[in-house]
Amino acid sequence: MYSMRAIGYVKSPYKERAEVPRGLGAKHEAEGVLEIAPEFEKGLTDIEGFSHLFVLWMFDRSEGFELMGTPPSDNRAHGVFATRSPYRPNPIGLTVVELVRRDGPRLYVRGVDMLEGTPILDIKPYLSSVDPEKLRRGWLGEAEARKG
Amino acid sequence: MYSMRAIGYVKSPYKERAEVPRGLGAKHEAEGVLEIAPEFEKGLTDIEGFSHLFVLWMFDRSEGFELMGTPPSDNRAHGVFATRSPYRPNPIGLTVVELVRRDGPRLYVRGVDMLEGTPILDIKPYLSSVDPEKLRRGWLGEAEARKG
Repeated sequence: MYSMRAIGYVKSPYKERAEVPRGLGAKHEAEGVLEIAPEFEKGLTDIEGFSHLFVLWMFDRSEGFELMGTPPSDNRAHGVFATRSPYRPNPIGLTVVELVRRDGPRLYVRGVDMLEGTPILDIKPYLSSVDPEKLRRGWLGEAEARKG
Repeated sequence: MYSMRAIGYVKSPYKERAEVPRGLGAKHEAEGVLEIAPEFEKGLTDIEGFSHLFVLWMFDRSEGFELMGTPPSDNRAHGVFATRSPYRPNPIGLTVVELVRRDGPRLYVRGVDMLEGTPILDIKPYLSSVDPEKLRRGWLGEAEARKG
């Protein structure tokens, strides 16, 4: 077993899960703030230069896990590791956000899909993208095609 | 505090950190296997359809953390959250791999930069990329420009 702690918390416009856009074509353009604890602020040095960040965070309002589940973007069940379900063996969320600006320990970002008060575990620079032409998106691509 | 457990382990050609390609222009094309524990195998259902996966894993051979550090790709120190340093407050690693094939609980992948026996925390489908034209890469872009 490994122990993790919050390095900060998310300020988000979303108070409940039902408010977060989900399913096919959902856009994540909400603005929010990553408020990092003062003791970790120095670790943000030079982060301003990056346009996009990976945020690792806790699904702290999900209990337990399900190995199979039906996501909002499909009417068929898929394995948890092939979805972004919150009911994971280790309930870690991963979101790519755009960094708008930094104010000391506060990172103003665009693209939050976390709830207000979500604990942040880690932040990493987004360094490179997979070529869209090389990307296959499994059941999600199929669900989109069925929707037409 | 949050508790995490391994859902499986990485089979990697790298036994020690010094063997992993690092620094500017490092290529990660090594092949390896994500061996998922039998109790979680069902959670891999339908993962075959995705060409790329996010793998979250533990830096289990790193002790403690450093808020500032000098990465192999630069000669200047940067904040830990602006680098991929293993010495993080929560020592979680994140790697994008290409899924070559699945054999039951074993995912054969390309692009491993983890060490042999690294504990895996989570696997997620890679769904979309940031447009390369919109990506700024901070100190890393500057270090590459200086190198010329």
